[in-house]
Amino acid sequence: MRYNKKKLKMCVDFNNMMTKWVGPEGFTEKQMLAIGDEVERAYESVQAGRGKGMMGWTELPYNQDDVVKDILDTAYFIRKNFEYFVVLGIGGSALGPTAAFKALKHMHYNELPKRKRAGLPKFYVEDNVDPERMAALLDVIVPEKTVFNIITKSGSTSETMTQYLIIRDMLEKKLGKENVAKHIIATTSKDSGNLIKIAQKEGYKTFYIPDGVGGRFSELSPVGLLPAAAIGIDIKGLLWGAAYADEIYRDPNPRRNAPLMAAVLQYLAMKKGKNISVMMPYADGLKEMADWYCQLWAESLGKNKNLDGTACNKGQTPVKALGVTDQHSQIQLYTEGPNDKVITFIAVENYRKEVAIPEGCEEFPNVNFLCGHTMGELIRAERKATEFAVTKAGKPNHTIVLPELNAFTLGELIMYFELQTAYAGALLGIDTFNQPGVEEGKNATYALLGRPGYEAKKAELGSAPAKISRYIV
Amino acid sequence: MRYNKKKLKMCVDFNNMMTKWVGPEGFTEKQMLAIGDEVERAYESVQAGRGKGMMGWTELPYNQDDVVKDILDTAYFIRKNFEYFVVLGIGGSALGPTAAFKALKHMHYNELPKRKRAGLPKFYVEDNVDPERMAALLDVIVPEKTVFNIITKSGSTSETMTQYLIIRDMLEKKLGKENVAKHIIATTSKDSGNLIKIAQKEGYKTFYIPDGVGGRFSELSPVGLLPAAAIGIDIKGLLWGAAYADEIYRDPNPRRNAPLMAAVLQYLAMKKGKNISVMMPYADGLKEMADWYCQLWAESLGKNKNLDGTACNKGQTPVKALGVTDQHSQIQLYTEGPNDKVITFIAVENYRKEVAIPEGCEEFPNVNFLCGHTMGELIRAERKATEFAVTKAGKPNHTIVLPELNAFTLGELIMYFELQTAYAGALLGIDTFNQPGVEEGKNATYALLGRPGYEAKKAELGSAPAKISRYIV
Repeated sequence: MRYNKKKLKMCVDFNNMMTKWVGPEGFTEKQMLAIGDEVERAYESVQAGRGKGMMGWTELPYNQDDVVKDILDTAYFIRKNFEYFVVLGIGGSALGPTAAFKALKHMHYNELPKRKRAGLPKFYVEDNVDPERMAALLDVIVPEKTVFNIITKSGSTSETMTQYLIIRDMLEKKLGKENVAKHIIATTSKDSGNLIKIAQKEGYKTFYIPDGVGGRFSELSPVGLLPAAAIGIDIKGLLWGAAYADEIYRDPNPRRNAPLMAAVLQYLAMKKGKNISVMMPYADGLKEMADWYCQLWAESLGKNKNLDGTACNKGQTPVKALGVTDQHSQIQLYTEGPNDKVITFIAVENYRKEVAIPEGCEEFPNVNFLCGHTMGELIRAERKATEFAVTKAGKPNHTIVLPELNAFTLGELIMYFELQTAYAGALLGIDTFNQPGVEEGKNATYALLGRPGYEAKKAELGSAPAKISRYIV
Repeated sequence: MRYNKKKLKMCVDFNNMMTKWVGPEGFTEKQMLAIGDEVERAYESVQAGRGKGMMGWTELPYNQDDVVKDILDTAYFIRKNFEYFVVLGIGGSALGPTAAFKALKHMHYNELPKRKRAGLPKFYVEDNVDPERMAALLDVIVPEKTVFNIITKSGSTSETMTQYLIIRDMLEKKLGKENVAKHIIATTSKDSGNLIKIAQKEGYKTFYIPDGVGGRFSELSPVGLLPAAAIGIDIKGLLWGAAYADEIYRDPNPRRNAPLMAAVLQYLAMKKGKNISVMMPYADGLKEMADWYCQLWAESLGKNKNLDGTACNKGQTPVKALGVTDQHSQIQLYTEGPNDKVITFIAVENYRKEVAIPEGCEEFPNVNFLCGHTMGELIRAERKATEFAVTKAGKPNHTIVLPELNAFTLGELIMYFELQTAYAGALLGIDTFNQPGVEEGKNATYALLGRPGYEAKKAELGSAPAKISRYIV
């Protein structure tokens, strides 16, 4: 597909972050200038880090020609041979594929007859180990027509490997051992972990996650690209959009670099005690994109050590809200509650469908004013009205504007958030790309399930003060 | 259905809220005793308010015999005559029906063939005005086989009335004017607002929302009961469960009253600056129940006026997380990030399905330890491990334990959260049951759409400082 870059350029309106518009809870030029050196260093460190260490994700829009070709060939094969595509993965291996699916496919995709899906496979992402959910999946898929894409970089994620074991066993029993490999594609690290070894032994088709690309930054790697391509999403468009955002925002001046500007203002907000970041898209299709953002922001910035090793408890808690739906759930709190949040709206200028609101309610003037408008006009008016209301209530907010929602603009948005996160981490002076805090729970799970080598952890679990019934109510 | 109350009794484990278990970020007996008088007053005011003013919801488990009969008859008629049931509603009119549907029906319900749905209708809740979503709905339903349940207490909610206008027009065009009424059921206030007048004029079947039951407290009224009954959920069980929770927790001592205990500890947490409440069920089926809680907690407690009229900015921001999924998204932040949250886990002791993890990975010991366990064991171990990890990290948390997930325990949970919210609001000294903060945005929407009478608001919108391009990046 061709995209008109200029017409599809995203932009971000930061006016309502500034005191002039939002009042004393906002920010000033002076505050921004006062941290000018920090901002410059953050910009330089991110630029200098591009493509190195755990910043391999910056290059994904540019260095995957061969991979994309392989993915498109594989997707073609999948579409010819299968009717169900199931991702087995969790966290970064699930949130991106889900977000792209929800943003770019029909809202009731799996309920459409095959013809209306253009012959493309139904699509599922299994991102939990709730047995009810696995049983439900097995109720709706047809094993001989299903391809399973197992995604785990480490190759040892308990949840994903559990799903794999169950699915492999099911396939073996239903289709025979010799037919299992046809139904499994492994996306994992090229040379570390179990999954690559299992894949090589069993003869699974494989795709690789580059070493320098962490789970939450992996949507533009085969992690996200293969599932997207399998259901007909234009993955080249996704990568072009990401490259375009990377290109238009490569400037040391925050006023010409939206992700840097966002990071700077969020950093000032965190310093001011605003520990909550609300992500509120005005499009049902972007609801799961907000989930993806929540992982990116939470896991990247929530850290208890600075880069110099000193202790801290940094991070801002991301909250997903959906416009207009959550106006009826959260806006009461956002307007009247504590001054503890920054709200990010995502506006879509043109929806892919439009629905007119018909005439026919003349007797009831407080319904009739809606008649003659369109749903698009209503949702846009509600977004502007909510922006007005939270601004009037003195709550800092800014709005990301997407001209429309398609593969290209989704790519822009992904790159924008990734860059914003990298800049914010650099400003905070923490390691944006690790996640040491998840080890404790993982190890405790191993201990509870009796994994050899975790006896000491099991003892530690047992040594917590006994719970008392007085506090069990 | 019969339920064994004793076996289905919920309980809440508060041990990890106390300093003895969680360390200095927790709470002590002394702190609880110090606010003993406040707690007593809060308990008394909620008990004294039962069934009065905006506390009509406390009596819903007891005073709806006739309504339930009418709902069950209507549901029977729906099941005989229709194949699609669509809720048109937003906020409190949508979150409850969605939560019950997701908690108690098959996880891919709408994808099941009719036989596997026991002949029950497919189910949709339209809770937004995104035109793409409305268009998508119209792609998958068959108008002549669809019944639309329009739910709005005020009878003037713009989003709901917009959907109504579109649907009525569509029905009129497809089925003829004379056949529209058969397809519409209105759930609204008995004697105020437009919808009741329209319903009477057009001859729609109607159900009433009692005056003293606000949107977010309405799940156990016809708002939630009719949609639930239409898809075969045992609404009597739901009400019995709610009555049971109400009964077992009617005690002035927090140590025998879990919702009061939760409110007291959250109140102490808010005083300590913990402005975030995480709701993290370990069951895919309870994900949307967490959304329902988020509205209840946010809209009830997020207030800028105390009961005595003095200014404040109270409230705690609810955050939804899903176990185990969000261990891979949020737990890094929860363990290492700021000491700003209280985490509520929801544990389900017995899942309705169980899936064994088969043997067959002997060569890979760090996968093989999973083999021979079940998914149920894994998800339970992960919950305990996460509880251990956040407690070790010093973050106060407590766990609601449901023996299993069914209509009865869902009823318990609904009543538990509603009571907790009422107690918390009483402790905070705010009006738990109003939502004045949503008016500003509503009025601005009216102004932007040119509703007569909102010219002054339109002028106010126009008088904000002009945005400057320097801040649009």
